[in-house]
Amino acid sequence: MHLKASQIFETFHAQGILEQMSGPDTAIARFDPVENGTASSLVFVDNPEYVEPAINQAPAAIVTSGELCEQFSSLSDTAVLTAANVRLAHALIKQAYDDHDHRDTGWPQIHPSAVIHESATIAAGVMVGPGVVIGRNAHVGRGSIIKANAVVEQDAVIGEDCLIHPNVVVAHGCKIGNRVILKSGCVIGMEGFGFAQDENGRSHRIPQTGRVTIEDDVVLGANCNVDRATYEETRIRAGAKIDALTQIGHNVDIGEDCIIVASSAIAGSSVLGRGVIMSGQCGVLDHVKVADQTILLHRAGVTSDIEKPGAYAGMPPQPLNEYFKNTAVAHKLVELRKQLRQLEKQVTALSQK
Amino acid sequence: MHLKASQIFETFHAQGILEQMSGPDTAIARFDPVENGTASSLVFVDNPEYVEPAINQAPAAIVTSGELCEQFSSLSDTAVLTAANVRLAHALIKQAYDDHDHRDTGWPQIHPSAVIHESATIAAGVMVGPGVVIGRNAHVGRGSIIKANAVVEQDAVIGEDCLIHPNVVVAHGCKIGNRVILKSGCVIGMEGFGFAQDENGRSHRIPQTGRVTIEDDVVLGANCNVDRATYEETRIRAGAKIDALTQIGHNVDIGEDCIIVASSAIAGSSVLGRGVIMSGQCGVLDHVKVADQTILLHRAGVTSDIEKPGAYAGMPPQPLNEYFKNTAVAHKLVELRKQLRQLEKQVTALSQK
Amino acid sequence: MHLKASQIFETFHAQGILEQMSGPDTAIARFDPVENGTASSLVFVDNPEYVEPAINQAPAAIVTSGELCEQFSSLSDTAVLTAANVRLAHALIKQAYDDHDHRDTGWPQIHPSAVIHESATIAAGVMVGPGVVIGRNAHVGRGSIIKANAVVEQDAVIGEDCLIHPNVVVAHGCKIGNRVILKSGCVIGMEGFGFAQDENGRSHRIPQTGRVTIEDDVVLGANCNVDRATYEETRIRAGAKIDALTQIGHNVDIGEDCIIVASSAIAGSSVLGRGVIMSGQCGVLDHVKVADQTILLHRAGVTSDIEKPGAYAGMPPQPLNEYFKNTAVAHKLVELRKQLRQLEKQVTALSQK
Repeated sequence: MHLKASQIFETFHAQGILEQMSGPDTAIARFDPVENGTASSLVFVDNPEYVEPAINQAPAAIVTSGELCEQFSSLSDTAVLTAANVRLAHALIKQAYDDHDHRDTGWPQIHPSAVIHESATIAAGVMVGPGVVIGRNAHVGRGSIIKANAVVEQDAVIGEDCLIHPNVVVAHGCKIGNRVILKSGCVIGMEGFGFAQDENGRSHRIPQTGRVTIEDDVVLGANCNVDRATYEETRIRAGAKIDALTQIGHNVDIGEDCIIVASSAIAGSSVLGRGVIMSGQCGVLDHVKVADQTILLHRAGVTSDIEKPGAYAGMPPQPLNEYFKNTAVAHKLVELRKQLRQLEKQVTALSQK
Repeated sequence: MHLKASQIFETFHAQGILEQMSGPDTAIARFDPVENGTASSLVFVDNPEYVEPAINQAPAAIVTSGELCEQFSSLSDTAVLTAANVRLAHALIKQAYDDHDHRDTGWPQIHPSAVIHESATIAAGVMVGPGVVIGRNAHVGRGSIIKANAVVEQDAVIGEDCLIHPNVVVAHGCKIGNRVILKSGCVIGMEGFGFAQDENGRSHRIPQTGRVTIEDDVVLGANCNVDRATYEETRIRAGAKIDALTQIGHNVDIGEDCIIVASSAIAGSSVLGRGVIMSGQCGVLDHVKVADQTILLHRAGVTSDIEKPGAYAGMPPQPLNEYFKNTAVAHKLVELRKQLRQLEKQVTALSQK
Repeated sequence: MHLKASQIFETFHAQGILEQMSGPDTAIARFDPVENGTASSLVFVDNPEYVEPAINQAPAAIVTSGELCEQFSSLSDTAVLTAANVRLAHALIKQAYDDHDHRDTGWPQIHPSAVIHESATIAAGVMVGPGVVIGRNAHVGRGSIIKANAVVEQDAVIGEDCLIHPNVVVAHGCKIGNRVILKSGCVIGMEGFGFAQDENGRSHRIPQTGRVTIEDDVVLGANCNVDRATYEETRIRAGAKIDALTQIGHNVDIGEDCIIVASSAIAGSSVLGRGVIMSGQCGVLDHVKVADQTILLHRAGVTSDIEKPGAYAGMPPQPLNEYFKNTAVAHKLVELRKQLRQLEKQVTALSQK
């Protein structure tokens, strides 16, 4: 890495991400976590508790907030850059200078072991790894990378600049937007879990002939599953980020910029509004609507519509404050019952006076 | 689709699925969801709230219940077919006319990139996709489809008319029945999670030398895992339908026609009776028996035998009614405690009179 | 299997695992579960409730505890071996005589369909299955087995005597120790779930340039996911056993000999001490520390540091005893409220006297 603090500042000041720079124009050799910086590191300091460690390291450069930056004024060999949103600066500056290059694998651009149907269309700049299978009439857009042993079935469409990790499956006819990341083991487009029971309790498949549509800039974690719709589509809207091992049922509609943390599950036909946040291991029952900007925490299990945005927890969900207060009492129920028993005795005694 | 309403009626009346037909013998161009039908659609109406939308669409044909059918009598260009079980009619009629053809991939029947051990037996009509691996002495029964990059290890048996999706793993010696569907990423036959601890807290593998047996007509969802038995077998009985991301431990026995919704987990040696239904994210601890026809809801976490069928929820499970009532109070515990405090004051005051 | 009881005894007495042997030196044809032994079986009896079935089977040999062994004195054709830790004896003796041989696949040692980068180093005795992909500068240590369609990306290191099951993914630069077992569908080294939000609620990737380090003797279950660190590493320490479908977030540190049962989730930067046990479907929020030897049961959901070892359950976790007692009351809340209402009436009546 050959990078001067001023280069970073100029580029990201122009983008409105960095505000000010003070101190010398140092050379940055590497990006490091603030817990473990060195004299040649760039570190990001957003949290007051990391000010002191950062001072002790005297790193080449610090990106921090306007609020914290004065605390670094004693560092004479450190460039101090300020950002209104340090975490965002971290994301964008690291993307620019310290990201992994997924094109640098050492494999030929289209590996000869890949099996690509003659009718599939592979745009310019696409990389196809060893063992990849791409089906009939599938399309892969410009600049996308399909890694080893991934499977893109017939009639599926992968947009531009996507990153499809090893062993991903995109089933027939599903549509993936641009700049989408599908992590390994992610499965897109299996049949929804739709069955009808007969009088003997036997289940019969309701064929699921819809598709999955994933819009631009979505990230899907490892070993997630997104089922295709019974009819029409299951849709994950632009910018949604979904963590590993999450289940998305058929006909679900995930709003723009939702954030769904690992091991969550959203059952069939439910709709998450825009910007919904789900913590890990949360769940949403089927045919439920969750309002824009709702935040689901502590394994919230949504059993009916949430119409009012806010933070919720528990199953069924309560507003977060109520949840915390009720849970605190729930953890002292034995005591509460004792107090009740005691009171009963007192009342009995009083009655007999 | 070239389909007349009368064709459907005749076929499914003969099977006892459809009861009556009224209105003209229309031509059906497509199957559609009742929310979104067109003048050339067949739609299924089981729910009174969809009667009005269906009337507004005036679709080519409606399959509905005897109860709701009269409400469509004003539709002069619509064939109205009645079924005792509309949902079942939906499943079976859609299977007959509007299903995906998994044989229509454009690949050769046995793709030349598949690696099939010379001792494996592949019956007539089997399709083997690109990159598939089939091991020594494995057998694949008539009409089954093994899709891209799936792995069937040595001595495994796949029955007839199975559908094995891309990237499935069936490990050595496991037995899969007929008409089984294994969705992508599904793993059958890894070692059970069995360890013994020594005096230093080190865990030592108890080798798991049993197998997994999956009976006819089972469906296993994407990224499920079914562990092989320590000895003998883990068994999933005929007709069971298991949704994505579900964990089935070693030596578990899943009863016929069970329905297990996504992200559930059943620990080692537990036994589900026939027709047990588990909602999403439910769990069953190890060595537990769950009675036939038990219904587990709201993340029920089964910690000991359930002997009496019925609906249960919570952890440990309570009968559903009690669960709902107790949960309602649990969400007002702060208030309850306030009332108790108030009462204590009153009693103290009374005592001091 | 040609095995005499005395052979087992001599080998494992020398190792301090078996203590005494009585009865005849029988021939053992097979290992069986105690529920289902035969006259030629070796069975392990640790639980008093299996004494009677074992006596009725009169198997060739029984390994049991010193405490239970006398109950088998009537069996004249059975060798009775005692162990201080019967379960450990089961693990080690079964490993020695009744384990699956993963090298016995019938495939060539390095299958010609595998794609191995010319710069990768494959040590002596390594088996590489069909369709495997091994990237640039990757290393696979002596005696390891990489099964069909697994992917080891560039710069990854697999230690010695590892067992990498079909369809596993080890992403670039990750380090796997010796004797590690990665079960099918396991994903190691995808990007951590790290994003920064801008003022419009859009999420921006914080590139995750760290790695995953998995130490010796770790077992990772099917379809687990272990994310790479933002910087530096996510680490799973020696001897940890992790069951299927478990999520390990970026920068997590799992202590030596931890046991994590299926479908659990541990969020970013959390630290489990040594020997922590997590039951199925448990969870740990991010940036939390869990003390050595902590036991998490009944879906414990850890929301802040656990400093005192012990058994905990519930969310947030309570000490197990309190959890059981409070839960018992929680299941009778309706009754409790009734008692409170009744008391209120009595007090009101008393006040009005």
